Amino acid sequence: MSCNLPVGVFDSGVGGLTVVKEIMHQLPKEEIVYFGDTARVPYGSKSKETVTAYSRQIIKFLQTKKVKAIVIACNTASAFALETVAKEIDVPIIGVVKPGAKTASETTRNGRIGIIGTEGTIRSGLYKEFLHEMDPALLVFGRACPLFVPLVEEGWIHDSVTKEVASRYLAELQEKDIDTLVLGCTHYPLLRDIIHEVAGDKVTLVNPAYETAKTLYDLLSSKDLLAQEEAKPDHKFYVSDGAEKFCIFANSILPCDIAQTKDVNIITFD
Amino acid sequence: MSCNLPVGVFDSGVGGLTVVKEIMHQLPKEEIVYFGDTARVPYGSKSKETVTAYSRQIIKFLQTKKVKAIVIACNTASAFALETVAKEIDVPIIGVVKPGAKTASETTRNGRIGIIGTEGTIRSGLYKEFLHEMDPALLVFGRACPLFVPLVEEGWIHDSVTKEVASRYLAELQEKDIDTLVLGCTHYPLLRDIIHEVAGDKVTLVNPAYETAKTLYDLLSSKDLLAQEEAKPDHKFYVSDGAEKFCIFANSILPCDIAQTKDVNIITFD
Repeated sequence: MSCNLPVGVFDSGVGGLTVVKEIMHQLPKEEIVYFGDTARVPYGSKSKETVTAYSRQIIKFLQTKKVKAIVIACNTASAFALETVAKEIDVPIIGVVKPGAKTASETTRNGRIGIIGTEGTIRSGLYKEFLHEMDPALLVFGRACPLFVPLVEEGWIHDSVTKEVASRYLAELQEKDIDTLVLGCTHYPLLRDIIHEVAGDKVTLVNPAYETAKTLYDLLSSKDLLAQEEAKPDHKFYVSDGAEKFCIFANSILPCDIAQTKDVNIITFD
Repeated sequence: MSCNLPVGVFDSGVGGLTVVKEIMHQLPKEEIVYFGDTARVPYGSKSKETVTAYSRQIIKFLQTKKVKAIVIACNTASAFALETVAKEIDVPIIGVVKPGAKTASETTRNGRIGIIGTEGTIRSGLYKEFLHEMDPALLVFGRACPLFVPLVEEGWIHDSVTKEVASRYLAELQEKDIDTLVLGCTHYPLLRDIIHEVAGDKVTLVNPAYETAKTLYDLLSSKDLLAQEEAKPDHKFYVSDGAEKFCIFANSILPCDIAQTKDVNIITFD
């Protein structure tokens, strides 16, 4: 395995770009091959079997790009598929759930942690599982927030409707006196302002992306796979549908511009 | 072709069941084979190419069930795929857009019609096209309502948030002085009460399902294919993911019960 091979990153759609952003920031030399499964998005309402099957297909595709490591930049796929697919491949692979859980366990002072995410992520109970492995005394409360992704995609980022929806979703977590809240879906950091406003100053928001990029650094470093080249990395973006829409969204999130839609390639599995 | 073969009906997920309900009501002798593409739902935000490819796969599956006719019970698939797939198969096939347009043209008194639907349905412009074929003088105004489907799926059917969202979506159509509004997505009839409340008594709501069932009756009748058997038809339901969730939703909509989850079969394409 050569250190100058790219890192594969995938998500159900555009949300994973918030993780890519953090990787670009912490590991600026790494070349990224990103895949967004925009033809089958969202994953959050679908079954473990289906999300695992989709993840397996995408990993197979990323392997054709000779990636040296893979990041599942999607909480639902990390929760449902990582354990299974990791056993099937030789390439090192990480998800966002374990890093998110680690940060939360280091952040909380009162031991009461809230997790918000898709229906699938919350149902999987994986955040709770990892947190209890780290400290069995932690109290962990989950809440699915199915409207957050559509609200972000509608562009209602700073909006009274979104605030009202957030108030309802967070009410029961606030009653539990949490002091730490994991943004357990890659879209949610885009709602950080409203979530902060609703949750209040006493609750620290955890974005798993930061720790995920750090985990990737540690992984590559331990295997002597950190990129060495000084040249600007040539990132590649692939989606399964809607290259143009992806391009607009990507350029609103990433520190580098995807110059043109034609730079985003469409890959279909069927 | 025998008149006692079933009718195939498909949708991106559960929304098409509102059309099935109307078919069961108007054509109670017809046996239905329903397919809901719950593993790839929604279609409304995806491209014409992708929605056409998915529709083609589903039609191929329905043909293995020896259906005598097919109903595309999804506005987005009707708008994007019907014209293309109709040329590829021998089985007669209808969608919901043309019937919906017909009802709207017969309903309006002032010639000003609003269409609400998914991003794909509105972008296709197909309602407008059909309406202008019927009467070039009609004024047609479209508005995509991407949050309506997630709100229905969250169960917020009678809710202040949904009302606020509806008020925003409908505001520009109301300024156009429409007197007729087509519920151009099969989920929207479930929001009929709130949409009526927001749009007011002067606006008549059109649900294309009624006219679609009537069109199906006319089609089968013209080909001498109306079911003749008196026995209670044995409907079949297939989905690509989440049989249990589908079952709950179906039983909340349909006049007949799907007895158990195991009656809903999972079909995967990949």
